Amino acid sequence: MIRIAIAGYGNLGRGTELAVAKNPDMKLVAVFSRRDPSTVKTVDPTVPVYSLDDAAAHKDEVDVLIICGGSATDLPTMTPALARDFNVIDSFDTHAKIPEHFANVDAASSESGHIAMISVGWDPGMFSVARLYGLSVLPDGADYTFWGRGVSQGHSDAIRRIPGVVDARQYTVPVDAALGKVRAGEQPNLTTREKHTRECYVVAEEGADKSAIEQAIVTMPNYFADYDTTVNFISLEELREKHMGIPHGGTVIRTGKTGAENENTHVIEYKLTLDSNPEFTASVIAAFARAAYRMHSRGVTGCKTVFDVAPIDLAPITPEEARAHDL
Amino acid sequence: MIRIAIAGYGNLGRGTELAVAKNPDMKLVAVFSRRDPSTVKTVDPTVPVYSLDDAAAHKDEVDVLIICGGSATDLPTMTPALARDFNVIDSFDTHAKIPEHFANVDAASSESGHIAMISVGWDPGMFSVARLYGLSVLPDGADYTFWGRGVSQGHSDAIRRIPGVVDARQYTVPVDAALGKVRAGEQPNLTTREKHTRECYVVAEEGADKSAIEQAIVTMPNYFADYDTTVNFISLEELREKHMGIPHGGTVIRTGKTGAENENTHVIEYKLTLDSNPEFTASVIAAFARAAYRMHSRGVTGCKTVFDVAPIDLAPITPEEARAHDL
Repeated sequence: MIRIAIAGYGNLGRGTELAVAKNPDMKLVAVFSRRDPSTVKTVDPTVPVYSLDDAAAHKDEVDVLIICGGSATDLPTMTPALARDFNVIDSFDTHAKIPEHFANVDAASSESGHIAMISVGWDPGMFSVARLYGLSVLPDGADYTFWGRGVSQGHSDAIRRIPGVVDARQYTVPVDAALGKVRAGEQPNLTTREKHTRECYVVAEEGADKSAIEQAIVTMPNYFADYDTTVNFISLEELREKHMGIPHGGTVIRTGKTGAENENTHVIEYKLTLDSNPEFTASVIAAFARAAYRMHSRGVTGCKTVFDVAPIDLAPITPEEARAHDL
Repeated sequence: MIRIAIAGYGNLGRGTELAVAKNPDMKLVAVFSRRDPSTVKTVDPTVPVYSLDDAAAHKDEVDVLIICGGSATDLPTMTPALARDFNVIDSFDTHAKIPEHFANVDAASSESGHIAMISVGWDPGMFSVARLYGLSVLPDGADYTFWGRGVSQGHSDAIRRIPGVVDARQYTVPVDAALGKVRAGEQPNLTTREKHTRECYVVAEEGADKSAIEQAIVTMPNYFADYDTTVNFISLEELREKHMGIPHGGTVIRTGKTGAENENTHVIEYKLTLDSNPEFTASVIAAFARAAYRMHSRGVTGCKTVFDVAPIDLAPITPEEARAHDL
């Protein structure tokens, strides 16, 4: 049994508990939280919950620690710190800062002799794997990543910070025309606006200036100004009835040319349609926790990413079974 | 530069020459053929062509030998034999015999200290990888593989052997209704007949009994009897005009459940749409040749499959570039 612990028990931590339960070779042995442990309600009430400050005291009970913190402020410090005492996995998703995070985590985990896998999930994660296989197999080509239709928590939060807004959900939606051109192998140049639209469902305070809220959303730099954004004001009841899920997904498409005169076009598409973003992310993390355990057992240390893991190390079956039934 | 040689110069061998040319870190140094070398016309006429019998004499000039033979009779003997002198790759695709082929090739390559990758291509190959990632990430689920729309060479050949047939093409076509149920996450039980249909385009000899030919096709055991098969008689001109390509493709779909009460469904779809089956297969092989070279340089020997290769070893870019741009 691979002994798993979770640091941080929000949506992703809860998803990780559920994902671990789906893997008969894994056992959840501890949850570490910054909250008062007595207030943390795990799905399985028998799982011990400890203060994150006491994590190191339990290091000998844990094979892999899954760190379920936020990328903006938690993971840049938590992952290197916890890699001193544990094999760790995180889902660091600030793409532009991955090289810096990698260097910090690699230093800590190499020194302590642990393995640390960063940026595990679906993007970064499975989508990254799809991009790397794609460019390796079709080097004369281009790849495109489309996200959605799905809820963006960051964009939903940005709307909630506007005065007069009670609650909000933002859906990222890929543009069909752009997807069509890419799937046809045209390798188009696409602007941000041409790839995705943004759909907002907003609950306003009674008497709030809705047109001011709408203007504040559609002109918001970085988040909305570069997109065609639609804003729909709805009641709190409607939001609770229709928009409480956290669906997401998207598609990575690689197209490329082969032939003596580039006469043949090939299209590789990797598509995810997810009812629950955090539960799927956690499911990916659980598989990579198995790989981290196996790789560390073979003496591998330092920072690794999904690119460094052979698929067989993720599998809940033996190499013989995989070759006989899945190759 | 990775020095590549090709053993066997048919459609796949030619595709491999073209694929190697797309990878600036590879160079094709030799083609080995069972035919008279003077009759083998490579795309690049400067590539040396030797008799396959003389291959061993060139072993020090070659980093990886790509064996482009048939699975029925060539590869079971060629791959173990050539693995005595070379790092090799093949595209052995008789799924039921993979464990036996693996054992034979593993014995030969382990003894000689070479690496031998078998069953590389898209199925087995990229589709196998998609199946293994899928079952690892969503262990509580099911996977489905659909092939086509594309030309099956084996089924086309089977039709050509019927008396009165001049030429033929057979297309394997996935059934939309089955694809729809799978994509909806229903995890249906599907019979062979429910998953694919077979479309045949047949050129008959003048005066041949077309209804006898059609009966011979649709009742042929293993090839057609278990499918809904349509037979279209066309002229040789129409066959040459419309059916000379070798398109193929298909899709691997994994669906699975997560959540405390299995309330969430996730769908992973890996889809290929290929203008040229042999050229895409060869493109996959070229990427795995790079991995074979790198892995052997690190001391890895014995038989390996696509399951054993970390994606980064396939990539024509550095790990730093991959983390910065593709993770």
